[in-house]
Amino acid sequence: MSRIEQQMEFMREIDGLKQIGRQTYLKDGSRKENDAEHSWHLAMMALVMQEYANEQIDLLRVVSMVLIHDVVELDAGDTYAYDDAGNTTKREREVAAADRIFHILPDDQAVYFRDLWEEFEAENTAEAKFAHVLDNIQPMMLNDASDGKAWREHQVKLSQILKRNEHTQNGSEEIWKYAKEELIAPNMKKGNIIRD
Amino acid sequence: MSRIEQQMEFMREIDGLKQIGRQTYLKDGSRKENDAEHSWHLAMMALVMQEYANEQIDLLRVVSMVLIHDVVELDAGDTYAYDDAGNTTKREREVAAADRIFHILPDDQAVYFRDLWEEFEAENTAEAKFAHVLDNIQPMMLNDASDGKAWREHQVKLSQILKRNEHTQNGSEEIWKYAKEELIAPNMKKGNIIRD
Repeated sequence: MSRIEQQMEFMREIDGLKQIGRQTYLKDGSRKENDAEHSWHLAMMALVMQEYANEQIDLLRVVSMVLIHDVVELDAGDTYAYDDAGNTTKREREVAAADRIFHILPDDQAVYFRDLWEEFEAENTAEAKFAHVLDNIQPMMLNDASDGKAWREHQVKLSQILKRNEHTQNGSEEIWKYAKEELIAPNMKKGNIIRD
Repeated sequence: MSRIEQQMEFMREIDGLKQIGRQTYLKDGSRKENDAEHSWHLAMMALVMQEYANEQIDLLRVVSMVLIHDVVELDAGDTYAYDDAGNTTKREREVAAADRIFHILPDDQAVYFRDLWEEFEAENTAEAKFAHVLDNIQPMMLNDASDGKAWREHQVKLSQILKRNEHTQNGSEEIWKYAKEELIAPNMKKGNIIRD
């Protein structure tokens, strides 16, 4: 295959992310969102909320990272944040997926995007830390907007949310403050999040 | 509202793009895609195919442009490329939408994104030209992958495709060459596109 054919093949392959469902509902609660929609929403949040990153960030790198961060779920599926069993095998399944999917691209791009995904996973750089803030806060925002539907369905406890977000303040103190005060606290009060 | 509340309100508002349907089918033909999915797919294409832009481009600007280019459809709805009646009122409907939606954001960001959308619409800069290439070629790629389903349903003629793509070669000669040879010609042969 020529270079452009490899790239177009990758574009067709990742169309499948529009059919990988997540546990988060749209704001009106009518249905759950999929990985493509989620990734777009994170990229928009990156553009609008970049000013709240604790550290200086390369915005294009953050946007690129969130656009591709769920590509591995084409093969590995979406693992719900609070699915303990699923999360024990997640890394293995996702690495195999990354090896296959990014290598549909020409070699130079396969290496670039594979590395970018690993950078997201490792969560060590300023960009990866901020990308994780967005990946954690976007579903929280939608859970709040849909009156806690997903939290209630999964009987999510405060301790689970706090554990999942133990690094969120490292990426953005201001967004974490907003999340605690405007997303978590009101839903504790409503009983959408279980106090434990 | 505080600055961060205005930004979060915008993020909730644009969640609605996940419910604005387009005429393009997913590659497996199972359903049509929506604006959020489409915008994510264009942003991925920008990352992977930037090398084919005729002119030097600012990639972050192209990605930002394609991420926001359909936000106006929240109010104005999706106007199908070959809907002549709809296209006569499209500009007016979309300008009113842009005035409302981007102004949910703090003023500095409202101006920035409103201007970025106008730049996309005007199609004069290198970035806007390349963004339009992606916006035209992504549905063509999916129409081809779904065996011409959308083309057949709308009885699309070659002359319509050529008219819609009259500027595509100004943004990318290489992508336009690929589209003619690998997307349009095979579908002419199959009768998915009407020869006129």
